[in-house]
Amino acid sequence: MTAETEMRITEKSRIKRAPTRAVYDRATVDAILDAGLLCHVGYVIDGAPYVTATCHWRKGDRVYWHGSAASRMLRTVTSGVPVCFTVSHLDGIVLARSGFHHSVNYRGVTLFGEAVKIEDEGEKLAALKDLSDRLTPGRGEELRPVNDQEMKGTTICALEIDEGSAKVRAGGPVDDDEDYDLDVWAGVVPVTTTLGAPIPDPRLKPGIAEPAYLREISIGQAPKA
Amino acid sequence: MTAETEMRITEKSRIKRAPTRAVYDRATVDAILDAGLLCHVGYVIDGAPYVTATCHWRKGDRVYWHGSAASRMLRTVTSGVPVCFTVSHLDGIVLARSGFHHSVNYRGVTLFGEAVKIEDEGEKLAALKDLSDRLTPGRGEELRPVNDQEMKGTTICALEIDEGSAKVRAGGPVDDDEDYDLDVWAGVVPVTTTLGAPIPDPRLKPGIAEPAYLREISIGQAPKA
Repeated sequence: MTAETEMRITEKSRIKRAPTRAVYDRATVDAILDAGLLCHVGYVIDGAPYVTATCHWRKGDRVYWHGSAASRMLRTVTSGVPVCFTVSHLDGIVLARSGFHHSVNYRGVTLFGEAVKIEDEGEKLAALKDLSDRLTPGRGEELRPVNDQEMKGTTICALEIDEGSAKVRAGGPVDDDEDYDLDVWAGVVPVTTTLGAPIPDPRLKPGIAEPAYLREISIGQAPKA
Repeated sequence: MTAETEMRITEKSRIKRAPTRAVYDRATVDAILDAGLLCHVGYVIDGAPYVTATCHWRKGDRVYWHGSAASRMLRTVTSGVPVCFTVSHLDGIVLARSGFHHSVNYRGVTLFGEAVKIEDEGEKLAALKDLSDRLTPGRGEELRPVNDQEMKGTTICALEIDEGSAKVRAGGPVDDDEDYDLDVWAGVVPVTTTLGAPIPDPRLKPGIAEPAYLREISIGQAPKA
């Protein structure tokens, strides 16, 4: 697979509203995907739309998500149908001098394509390790191996990062010229995702120290380099 | 409209995976909707799924969202087609003693139905006031009136809170009995949404104080009673 530097722009993926906020470079798309833990996956059953929130992770040119092999969402999206995959971060509330120009700062990615089911056992194990490493690098080695029943009960699917786009709004309000003289507060209230202090399970075995990686988890912001 | 206390359960809205996490009471559904600012709306164009992230607000038995009258999303969802509306909150990362039982704590709502366009001008103005009051009660009165062009350029749509469900996971990991003896840290890393200190616009008129409501904004958690 060649490393692409730009997303493929199609009638589906071209941003139509507020096109100045559109971003098609892969570095931006990847950073937005990597900052997220929760995605929303859209699919169609009997002509009707369904949206399922689930956890995702990225590796190279693909995003992955997984769940129970019995999941209707996973059975549907791996059956060769079009999928819409989105990750969105809310970064701020933008208060303008008129109601009309109020806005939010955000980073979002939308991908289109067909998801594929990862069938190969080695590939599945590698993908599960990537998921674990995304949040808690090294934890995979501490855990017991995945057993056959768990493996059989888990479906993992992947979608190429190819047709899609990012949309980003940042910065302060942009008001109509004549409104700058109004006696109204204007600015931005920042919104961030915060990770709290880890809460040990009441049944935690005595003597087990809190792993260092728990304090390194990052969601919402770009992961530390 | 009668005040419903339960969601309408249908083949679409009945939770199939992890049904013990399903919640159908309206109080829970409303609290999850009210805690959110960002929703994801699913719709179908030419048989393909699209998911758009946008801001929503609730009033009584309806959720609302809005945008440019030229928005393809809004033109589509107000054309009498099925819509899937979702709001999701990530509340924690659940670290279990096996990879398989890792999970996330979350609160999510999914609604199904057909959205309607708010055509009446008075109703539109009232809806915009509700949006403003959701985050910044009282700010609506400080702003200049919406002008005709802005009114014409804005489409607001509404969806009944009727067919749908909530799904909630909370608490610590649930491990296989034989895994509780493993030497692995287990517990929850809480995830919260945090509002930062307001950043005044560089062009803010001198002498304008920061409104008190800016420090009262709540997202992600249930709004203060």
